[in-house]
Amino acid sequence: MSAPRLETRLRSATQEVVIGHDTRFCLIGERINPTGRRIFQEQLRAGDLSAIERDVQAQVEGGADVLDVNMGVPLTDEADLLAKAITMVQKLTDKPICIDSSVVEALEAGLAVYQGRALVNSITAEDDRMAQILPLVKKYDAAIIALPNDEDEIPMEVEKRVELTRKIVQVATTEYGIAQADIVIDPLAMPIGADGTVALTFFETVRRIRDEFGVNMTCGASNVSFGMPSRHALGAAFLPMAMQAGLTSAIMDTRTPQIVEAVKAADVLLGHDEWGGAWIAAHRARQAATA
Amino acid sequence: MSAPRLETRLRSATQEVVIGHDTRFCLIGERINPTGRRIFQEQLRAGDLSAIERDVQAQVEGGADVLDVNMGVPLTDEADLLAKAITMVQKLTDKPICIDSSVVEALEAGLAVYQGRALVNSITAEDDRMAQILPLVKKYDAAIIALPNDEDEIPMEVEKRVELTRKIVQVATTEYGIAQADIVIDPLAMPIGADGTVALTFFETVRRIRDEFGVNMTCGASNVSFGMPSRHALGAAFLPMAMQAGLTSAIMDTRTPQIVEAVKAADVLLGHDEWGGAWIAAHRARQAATA
Repeated sequence: MSAPRLETRLRSATQEVVIGHDTRFCLIGERINPTGRRIFQEQLRAGDLSAIERDVQAQVEGGADVLDVNMGVPLTDEADLLAKAITMVQKLTDKPICIDSSVVEALEAGLAVYQGRALVNSITAEDDRMAQILPLVKKYDAAIIALPNDEDEIPMEVEKRVELTRKIVQVATTEYGIAQADIVIDPLAMPIGADGTVALTFFETVRRIRDEFGVNMTCGASNVSFGMPSRHALGAAFLPMAMQAGLTSAIMDTRTPQIVEAVKAADVLLGHDEWGGAWIAAHRARQAATA
Repeated sequence: MSAPRLETRLRSATQEVVIGHDTRFCLIGERINPTGRRIFQEQLRAGDLSAIERDVQAQVEGGADVLDVNMGVPLTDEADLLAKAITMVQKLTDKPICIDSSVVEALEAGLAVYQGRALVNSITAEDDRMAQILPLVKKYDAAIIALPNDEDEIPMEVEKRVELTRKIVQVATTEYGIAQADIVIDPLAMPIGADGTVALTFFETVRRIRDEFGVNMTCGASNVSFGMPSRHALGAAFLPMAMQAGLTSAIMDTRTPQIVEAVKAADVLLGHDEWGGAWIAAHRARQAATA
């Protein structure tokens, strides 16, 4: 017996996005993030948020359904920066936002200004992270990304990841009153170059979590190809395979057409794009653009 | 409890290819086939087999591990043509051959001249087809592709396909003494444009057949995208998804780099390309070719 499959509903002020097992895959654009972007970091440190406009446009044009917003710049007031960035992004697009920070105060500042129903990125199975963040998720009626690792380790075994997922679901639903549908598990995509079994572990974890909890799942899609050549081609194979196992969302740079197209093709093959309507429309749009 | 996973061993005079669940996906090049190729048909009818040389080279360069050879041209002596073509292909390449015909006499003529251990394409679950072809498969120590359909129908239900597979395995092993490892099931890939559920049915059939029988499986990979735009992108998502479910081989035109690359990426992700050695080597070869 499999668990009922749940829907996670996110909203901006005017638009709803559903993450679910019987609907099209949800692309969360990851680019609004200063990690590894030196110039963007300097701009943000100087209070210049203007680069965000270009990033929002590129992620949305590439097909993002939701935008991850992270303002983790060392030596800044991250709470203030994240609140400003969220307000700015909401003026630029109707897409819901995934509020991304490791700093609790920044998450709260972001949630406080956000218009709609956000996704919060993220908690782990660590008790203190859950105790700090889940009350905010409840207070602001948000959804939450949760990683099945704890203070001890990032577990490499399927069973241990499922066990930590069970703990997260148990604690979030019974102690903090979060709906199970609002918990989005990140089953931990690791680099295949370091260990040839990590994708198999990932697929099996996804299948087990889907069948036992019915929750939605997301992951950092580019992790798997880290350190390998031809990364886009690996990503373009990885996501359809993961979708076939039950992954319902990914955090990725939607400026990569090869990977976005692979996801859209998998939507067709999984019967989530009725009559291939979106697939055929995208094809026609490309034809028109090049005509 | 899943069945033990079996290996199908094919050979030319000098080279062995293993189709298996724990090894790299087996690409069967489909191009040496006059179906839909009017000029090639006319050449063959006039006894001119020279075009085969180019086709062999293109399929092998594209990554074919095995070559399907079909000489089904109306109004010719197909047995004679197929025997000649097989002899010719074996002079051009070391790759094992998949002898492809709906005509029993042609299959026998092909098997009689073939050097090595061939794959025969194909039987169905129809009693008379099995009675005609399985004795040849046994006599020439070949392997056989079998489609789980019968005279009544191409079944659209997973359960019925599994049931017909059970019949084929039962009859081939007990009545004709064929090893279960030498039965390669084609779980019937159908066009997604006609019915949005056919790929889901296919994936589930593959998983069920793998778990119940442990046999290898192949399919006509291009069928699924028939009638749709951007066919290569659909094929490039379909095969990794099918491989994740347990497909171990496909009959395809290996001149399509996007699909071949998707298969190779899935090999890496399934842990069938140790340390990504083949993946990295292919990347370096492409770099060298464009340098």
